[in-house]
Amino acid sequence: MTTETQLPLRLPVLDDAGRAVLFTEARTSNTFSDEPVSDETLRSIWDLAQWPPTAANTQPLRVTFVRTAEAKKRLIPLLAEGNRAKSEQAPVTAILAADLDFHEHTPFTFPINPDMRDNFEAQGRDGREGMARFNAGLQIGYLLLAVRAHGLASGPMAGFDADAVTEEFFPGGRLRALLVVNIGHPGADPWYPRLPRLAAEDVLSFI
Amino acid sequence: MTTETQLPLRLPVLDDAGRAVLFTEARTSNTFSDEPVSDETLRSIWDLAQWPPTAANTQPLRVTFVRTAEAKKRLIPLLAEGNRAKSEQAPVTAILAADLDFHEHTPFTFPINPDMRDNFEAQGRDGREGMARFNAGLQIGYLLLAVRAHGLASGPMAGFDADAVTEEFFPGGRLRALLVVNIGHPGADPWYPRLPRLAAEDVLSFI
Repeated sequence: MTTETQLPLRLPVLDDAGRAVLFTEARTSNTFSDEPVSDETLRSIWDLAQWPPTAANTQPLRVTFVRTAEAKKRLIPLLAEGNRAKSEQAPVTAILAADLDFHEHTPFTFPINPDMRDNFEAQGRDGREGMARFNAGLQIGYLLLAVRAHGLASGPMAGFDADAVTEEFFPGGRLRALLVVNIGHPGADPWYPRLPRLAAEDVLSFI
Repeated sequence: MTTETQLPLRLPVLDDAGRAVLFTEARTSNTFSDEPVSDETLRSIWDLAQWPPTAANTQPLRVTFVRTAEAKKRLIPLLAEGNRAKSEQAPVTAILAADLDFHEHTPFTFPINPDMRDNFEAQGRDGREGMARFNAGLQIGYLLLAVRAHGLASGPMAGFDADAVTEEFFPGGRLRALLVVNIGHPGADPWYPRLPRLAAEDVLSFI
């Protein structure tokens, strides 16, 4: 039933080793070694993370990789106190933001619907913010797993002043900071004991 | 530097075959074969998707797997017209929702901070909604990749009446529908041509 232009209809599965890398064995790292992470590796992470889907292919996530001492100095005071040492240690801290003007790209990203840009334009930034935040959230999920796919640990941190980070790094109102993520190789004693996951019956329903 | 209770500090990478399954070759499916997907497989997908991180381990995503004809009949009229045939065809359509009362579980999921439950309680559902939606969004990203890990295709659809689905399936205000996702084996002509991804320079900054 397949043609040369289609994937086979019987799709491959992810093996146990791959499941361990991304899901079952991977952990959030709280310390980082001083081994650097190259810009080439950061670009390769994005090359992977860019592929899974967003609504109408809108792709609203924007990623700012903070690597230099000067840029770190602007970020670290805006983190919760308990998170500062981690970002000082990590070779890279990514600021993940939603682009509220994602629709400027839709003539390129969703050429099937030429009216989409104007329809989103009419909604204004407030009208677009929910969609931008939600789809950027999906993309952050993909990105955290793409970091792991590269043999690196990530340390996502919600404990920061999102308004202050937005103002410091993204003045003008187009981008909104959503999450800050340390990226690097794990350092000494990197993992806390794993926290419990909810029982399946508290999450899943079958109807 | 490792101890028996730690993962090795040199983390494994995901091989090219694994990257193809989850990221580079996987596609959103628009048609589904009539091959069923068992409840056991759906549980196995969640077993995998439950592991990657959420803020303070809050895990606000809730998943309702719609498999029976009766339940499908309640859902399909609430989808955008262009999405109805896809969900009629798919053996399973999952309704993904955010639990605005996720904090009821925090004494179990985040025992490190016994005050967390009361602090979230004081915020009310409106105060908790942003955090619930964002973290459920991350978890949806993980879930879509966990579907692919099982050799299945997913078809996420934002085109549905979220308020009506919430009212129909989650009366009472605790859960909010976020996304509807078809799950199954791809059918005939399942893929549209792949839509373009943004250029890296439109997404990434290095500072």
